[in-house]
Amino acid sequence: MKMGKKKVMLPAKEVDLATVKYQYEKIEAPHVTGFFLKLFVKVLESPFGSLIISHLKKENKTDEMLRNTVIPEPPMFKPEFPPQESEAGVVLLDEDGKPEERVALALKCLPDYDPSTYWNTDSSASFRYWKIRDYAHAYRSKLATPSIIAERFISAMEEFGNKKPPMPLLISYDPEHIRKQAAASTKRFEEGNPLSILDGIFMAIKDDIDCSPYPSNGGTTFFHEIRPVEKDAVSVSRLRCCGVILVGKANMHELGLGTTGNNPNYGTARNPHDPERYTGGSSSGPAAIVAAGLCSAALGTDGGGSVRIPSSLCGIVGLKSTYGRTDMAGAICDSGTVEIIGPITSTVEDAILVYATILGSSAAEKIALKPSAPCLPDLASHESSNALGLLKLGKYTEWFNDVFSTDISNKCEDVLNRLSETYGCKTAEIVIPELNEMRIAHIVSIGSESLCGLTPDFEDGKRVKFTHDTRTNLALFRSFRGSDYVAAQCLRRRIMHYHMEIFKEVDVIVTPTTGYAELNCWFIMALFIMSNNLYHTL
Amino acid sequence: MKMGKKKVMLPAKEVDLATVKYQYEKIEAPHVTGFFLKLFVKVLESPFGSLIISHLKKENKTDEMLRNTVIPEPPMFKPEFPPQESEAGVVLLDEDGKPEERVALALKCLPDYDPSTYWNTDSSASFRYWKIRDYAHAYRSKLATPSIIAERFISAMEEFGNKKPPMPLLISYDPEHIRKQAAASTKRFEEGNPLSILDGIFMAIKDDIDCSPYPSNGGTTFFHEIRPVEKDAVSVSRLRCCGVILVGKANMHELGLGTTGNNPNYGTARNPHDPERYTGGSSSGPAAIVAAGLCSAALGTDGGGSVRIPSSLCGIVGLKSTYGRTDMAGAICDSGTVEIIGPITSTVEDAILVYATILGSSAAEKIALKPSAPCLPDLASHESSNALGLLKLGKYTEWFNDVFSTDISNKCEDVLNRLSETYGCKTAEIVIPELNEMRIAHIVSIGSESLCGLTPDFEDGKRVKFTHDTRTNLALFRSFRGSDYVAAQCLRRRIMHYHMEIFKEVDVIVTPTTGYAELNCWFIMALFIMSNNLYHTL
Repeated sequence: MKMGKKKVMLPAKEVDLATVKYQYEKIEAPHVTGFFLKLFVKVLESPFGSLIISHLKKENKTDEMLRNTVIPEPPMFKPEFPPQESEAGVVLLDEDGKPEERVALALKCLPDYDPSTYWNTDSSASFRYWKIRDYAHAYRSKLATPSIIAERFISAMEEFGNKKPPMPLLISYDPEHIRKQAAASTKRFEEGNPLSILDGIFMAIKDDIDCSPYPSNGGTTFFHEIRPVEKDAVSVSRLRCCGVILVGKANMHELGLGTTGNNPNYGTARNPHDPERYTGGSSSGPAAIVAAGLCSAALGTDGGGSVRIPSSLCGIVGLKSTYGRTDMAGAICDSGTVEIIGPITSTVEDAILVYATILGSSAAEKIALKPSAPCLPDLASHESSNALGLLKLGKYTEWFNDVFSTDISNKCEDVLNRLSETYGCKTAEIVIPELNEMRIAHIVSIGSESLCGLTPDFEDGKRVKFTHDTRTNLALFRSFRGSDYVAAQCLRRRIMHYHMEIFKEVDVIVTPTTGYAELNCWFIMALFIMSNNLYHTL
Repeated sequence: MKMGKKKVMLPAKEVDLATVKYQYEKIEAPHVTGFFLKLFVKVLESPFGSLIISHLKKENKTDEMLRNTVIPEPPMFKPEFPPQESEAGVVLLDEDGKPEERVALALKCLPDYDPSTYWNTDSSASFRYWKIRDYAHAYRSKLATPSIIAERFISAMEEFGNKKPPMPLLISYDPEHIRKQAAASTKRFEEGNPLSILDGIFMAIKDDIDCSPYPSNGGTTFFHEIRPVEKDAVSVSRLRCCGVILVGKANMHELGLGTTGNNPNYGTARNPHDPERYTGGSSSGPAAIVAAGLCSAALGTDGGGSVRIPSSLCGIVGLKSTYGRTDMAGAICDSGTVEIIGPITSTVEDAILVYATILGSSAAEKIALKPSAPCLPDLASHESSNALGLLKLGKYTEWFNDVFSTDISNKCEDVLNRLSETYGCKTAEIVIPELNEMRIAHIVSIGSESLCGLTPDFEDGKRVKFTHDTRTNLALFRSFRGSDYVAAQCLRRRIMHYHMEIFKEVDVIVTPTTGYAELNCWFIMALFIMSNNLYHTL
């Protein structure tokens, strides 16, 4: 037995950020495909598998961090915030109120909509995304009806299905169900009674969120056999009662356990900007269908980047809200401490509208987290006209630049420069300590939480129905001890502390979403979702 | 692979209590001692150990419960309560106030103290416990001084040390330190300025709670080398500033990982009522020193019965308060979700006084749990004169009677009859479902939480310094997966639900503390601490 393995961390409050050095972490994982992948999984699931897993974890310092380190903080099992002062210039949303009323209030927070900007241009002009208010204007001005859009949507879906190679955006989909919803919406417009600004808006739902009458397969082939869907998830029901037309269940990385969106069961949703590239994942279908211009919005789930990564790689907008803001009832992963349901849209204003509609903590989270009232910036008020310019951006330059290609960091740098030139945003240098600890705490938390829900079926003869990719992940997750999980929560308390300190200095942390333009890493580099008040709003 | 292993639990809210059948659980564990214990531990810690652990867990249905069962509830990581209405007839305590003020308020809640009851009897009469108000009266009436008591205490300790077999009540102890504290207290009385009703009261502190200038060994031989004590634990500092005389560190089961109090490192604190019997544990020393009449009170820690069991087996009073009511800073196990610091006393009124002094949640728990204000029943008021008679007691008869010998259940039955005859207490039949699930959830939670703090030293060459008893437990705890820990928290939500429902019907759950008059089981049968408002008070 080797002596002197033990490391003792300083209490987070005593860490001097000036002495923190950025750690370039090289993440080691085998790259195997085809026959060798199958063989690799067989061995992983055998009694010898633990040796391979041990070796990989040693390379990535997982056990060293969780088992050889004294972490002075007690565990924090969910992201907890002390009571926060409410901000000036924001509009409070009633999370117990009706979704129609929340989205109406959100609409009032937006700058005026000027149809001439969008509608006076030549209709043969180049492609542009229709945002929610474009559809709303078209329906109210009788330039279009939901039924007309439905037919276009259905033919576009056929077209996508026939592409070579195919682009399977949706994996459960019923044209008749879309037509029925569209006809009801069209009728409401004829009668002059749309339910909300979202009436007649087309949205896709990720396959791990319940949306009746479709099954929730979570990208697997068999979840419909073991997990019947009886009603909409809470977030979906909030959209439905606002008149949203739900087009079906969008493709995803199996069970969300990957960041490419690669799905051997249904085919892989390809990136609409370049079918030779991944969309990123796990919410591949939701991002692709929005990026293709077929839906104004989609719902994804995000526990470790699953909304943010595909939104970024598809060039659209994705929001991971503060944990607990959305009710996870009716999602396959409803038992975690990091996962949320979030909107994927083509514009920020659509993200605001959809987020305002779906938000509302579960009864259990209201007891556990006692969240402050959600709020939105009042962008319609003249005082807020330069709200963006007042934001102080925090940039950890070494992390920002730690990317596979400088193309990525340069592009992100350009965005910062534009924010500075156009709005006058100031950028401040920040330090985020213990990023590798954060990565390890994250994978142990989300892994253990996912495994908990999957084990009964895995053990019940369904093992072989999972993809080899999923089985590899589950073998890793089985190697995490209960005490590793607790240690990860001690790390969470440190990480929360650092972020609370950072958010005293800046309003937003800016960083490239991924270090790869096309992801191929096994582990995912992801954040516990962190937020200050301002993050709460968007 | 066997098919059809999977079980699906009904949601807890849909469980019909009328259909719940009591499950007599036979807990299987090998009984090995001496050479065979050492060999057993060697094998357990080898790569083959997991096979033995698997077998034992199979016998006890641990894995079946955690890995083959779909638990519909999301996890609850700490005992969470919805906001509760405050009770009538109680006095609120300010947990942010000074301990001296809290104990003064608690004193006002007690019925009047009548010295004649205690002091007019013949001093040669049979043994009786001196409670806190007896000492306080003696000091204030100049019948005794803390310094006089100190000398008696020191000679009694010598006597206990010289007994055959020896009874090691304290494992760190310095007569000079006691004399110094007693002299200071005596001086305060001479000057007419005692700090509180607790001034000059002798108390022992369990060896896993920091109490300067002593080390905290937690019953091990080596913790002083790896965990220096720089100041008092928060709870101890609250006692000290009330004038309590801290007599030293009381014996315990190594690291609290057992319920007998057997300690091969320092010898075992024997039961003062019968030196051939165990005290119960893990707070063996605290219970023994109070039961021997040497201290009015002691502090213990309780995660799975460690205050309640030895108090019960020694015939005195032990309180496990609601989780989070006491600040665990300065306790060896400060990172759990079940453990508390609680008083062990000879009378209920002393438990009230000590509890009122030490309570006060940590800053972190105030954010996490947002506890309601602690309160005490106002037993001094005439309206409360029959407070006890108004309590409705809940009894789960099959569980109550599931004991090793009917001596135990008959004795407990006698107590219930006396409560009924003397005060008019009513007893109602209740059903507590899923007691075995509770036992499993408890051991996985406390095991993983304990292991987390112990692993860095265990891996750092300290393995052989733990007792074989502890090493056996740690081998079990290492077998719990992160996903098992999460599943245990899903069970916690169910169990909390059942108890919340029960406490709508009754005020107190009555049950024998243990099923054994002398414990010898490996697993401990213990409760997540549960409480309604009334439990909060005491």
